Amino acid sequence: MQTGPQPADFADVRATNLAVVLRHVRAHGPVSRAGIAAATGLNKATVSSLVADLIERRLLRETGLAENRIGRPATMLVLDGSAYAAIGIEVTGDHLTAVAVDLAGEQLLSWRRAFPGREAEPGRGVSAIAALAGRAAARAGTRGRQVLGLTVGVPGLVDEAGAVRSSAALGWSDVDLRGDLLKALRKPEYDVAVDNDANLAALAEQRYGGHDGARNLVYLAGETGLGAGLIVDGRLLRGGRGFTGEIGRIRLHGGTLEELAGIESLIQRALPDADAEGPVTDFAPEVERVAAAARAGDARALEALRDVGRHLGHGLSLLNHLLDPEVIVLGGYFVPLAEWLIPAAGTDGATVTTSAIGPGAAAVGGAARVLDALDAGVLPALAG
Amino acid sequence: MQTGPQPADFADVRATNLAVVLRHVRAHGPVSRAGIAAATGLNKATVSSLVADLIERRLLRETGLAENRIGRPATMLVLDGSAYAAIGIEVTGDHLTAVAVDLAGEQLLSWRRAFPGREAEPGRGVSAIAALAGRAAARAGTRGRQVLGLTVGVPGLVDEAGAVRSSAALGWSDVDLRGDLLKALRKPEYDVAVDNDANLAALAEQRYGGHDGARNLVYLAGETGLGAGLIVDGRLLRGGRGFTGEIGRIRLHGGTLEELAGIESLIQRALPDADAEGPVTDFAPEVERVAAAARAGDARALEALRDVGRHLGHGLSLLNHLLDPEVIVLGGYFVPLAEWLIPAAGTDGATVTTSAIGPGAAAVGGAARVLDALDAGVLPALAG
Repeated sequence: MQTGPQPADFADVRATNLAVVLRHVRAHGPVSRAGIAAATGLNKATVSSLVADLIERRLLRETGLAENRIGRPATMLVLDGSAYAAIGIEVTGDHLTAVAVDLAGEQLLSWRRAFPGREAEPGRGVSAIAALAGRAAARAGTRGRQVLGLTVGVPGLVDEAGAVRSSAALGWSDVDLRGDLLKALRKPEYDVAVDNDANLAALAEQRYGGHDGARNLVYLAGETGLGAGLIVDGRLLRGGRGFTGEIGRIRLHGGTLEELAGIESLIQRALPDADAEGPVTDFAPEVERVAAAARAGDARALEALRDVGRHLGHGLSLLNHLLDPEVIVLGGYFVPLAEWLIPAAGTDGATVTTSAIGPGAAAVGGAARVLDALDAGVLPALAG
Repeated sequence: MQTGPQPADFADVRATNLAVVLRHVRAHGPVSRAGIAAATGLNKATVSSLVADLIERRLLRETGLAENRIGRPATMLVLDGSAYAAIGIEVTGDHLTAVAVDLAGEQLLSWRRAFPGREAEPGRGVSAIAALAGRAAARAGTRGRQVLGLTVGVPGLVDEAGAVRSSAALGWSDVDLRGDLLKALRKPEYDVAVDNDANLAALAEQRYGGHDGARNLVYLAGETGLGAGLIVDGRLLRGGRGFTGEIGRIRLHGGTLEELAGIESLIQRALPDADAEGPVTDFAPEVERVAAAARAGDARALEALRDVGRHLGHGLSLLNHLLDPEVIVLGGYFVPLAEWLIPAAGTDGATVTTSAIGPGAAAVGGAARVLDALDAGVLPALAG
């Protein structure tokens, strides 16, 4: 197997430096060419040539003049939000969320649709995802805007080829979602990717979550399942088969961590009548009932929150000591219950916070994954 | 904080490609220039220029002729083992191990010395490490051989500057080991690094452990403490402060994982008289006694092994589901006890094996870390 860097050529140097300038403007714009040169260490002639290229690719644009430090007016540069769109779709057991953002991070659309989840055959589910993706791409692509890519986030094990190996929340196994989407979308011009939902939510937190550019961030998703997205040393961990972060499957004393600290288990313990009418499929109202019961001082709900919180604390402890994150972000249904769960869990020295992105974090992260590729130097081709 | 790639220049391309050729010869030599070109995708003129440079730097050498595929004799290239040495030192509570290897992986020396550990002041410990390092460098540097670097592996938390923040096994806190070694060695020509022992053992397993170039490998060290070295997606994980892999500190139901599954706890449970003469400081003979008792069918020893094995299984389960490794390697004192521990632990789907490198794995890994820098393109300067 391959280790270490790949052979490089001079085109790679140019691509790397284009990406360095693009990232600098994203983080610090508006900024002048001289400012870019000073901050990156690239010389001014190189910066001018790189900026010209990025303007031609419609990734940067010039804005008004501003005084620079020595008093001469300089043309300032910002990201050009007008030319491109990145699309993310989140799939859960009961709904789809589609988000499109431009290069500057502005949301172009945010749609939520009901989704049959495990009630329907995988084929029908795939068709619904493809239809929503097609409509989102058509909408985002109006007024000459080019769609750069689409990433679909799925709860479950997704391999490196974009096939869903297994998803308990959807009742799927071995569904070639990326392949099926490419077919349904008739081999679109833009890139299509499929990823685990917690991985994408972690990317969303890294880019938009307000964690000061933390390079070590863990996202712990309380959804139908219990999954984590792991960013260590600035990179999302993938592992041997692409199956990192399956924290719910860890076997501990008393059961798996999902059985001990998952949202489904919490609902069953806190609400005696939760599955009186069959298994819970729509979690949001049940979680709201748990929160309401806790707020009203209901002893059963409070005990369930304490017990699940204690086990959640084991999860936080192991994430903290194994991966040394700067921040652990609780997402999904953990957010409305955090005021009870976190005190019961304890943080064991970790910095623990709740997601401010809210529902659809994996959709936002799907778009972020497309933009991350730009930041890594995979730039759109110059228009013919 | 910086994210993504750094600005690049054309010298980086050359360095990257020199490293690509070097790694190819290490993995596949003896190999011809044409073979390198075919395998790497670099053109033949570029390969000839890169090889000339690597021969001049004494990293490669030519060996005899061999027939190539179209029947013409070609000059074959192999790593030049004669010019350089890399040194690693392992520090434990009771001994030091020094290892030096050449570029071709041949061991030039392997020394083991008693070490006072926590019996002595940190200053005396540092002096002993520096003295052994100096002697190893002098020995490895005979006959014109250049020492490329020295890495010291320490049980405990080591920060990115090479300071030991805390080490229970040594009784150290906030010892600037790298700084002190540089002073004691009088600012040597070669690079000096300090790293966590389990991190280095993981690097040793990746390079010399015979795991088919696995890019996802976890090393779990049963030493005085319980620590792990984590290699995911081909890279050793570092984390926010450099403190990844502290698996022994994880808090679970019943205590920390080190209390539940550590070697010290095992000895205390298996041997009723273990600390009759004060706390155990030399673990090797006690571990041998535990193994002997188990072999003789001693009920107490077997029950302790089952109980500790079950908790160790929780550790294996969490490493497996969180990081998706291709292999988990048990090292240190887990090796002689593995025949009892692994069946009690269960593997929960992971591939679990024992280290074949044996004692001093962190010393071997310290040398491997020096060679890894070569593989990443940090080449020794051309001799004046």
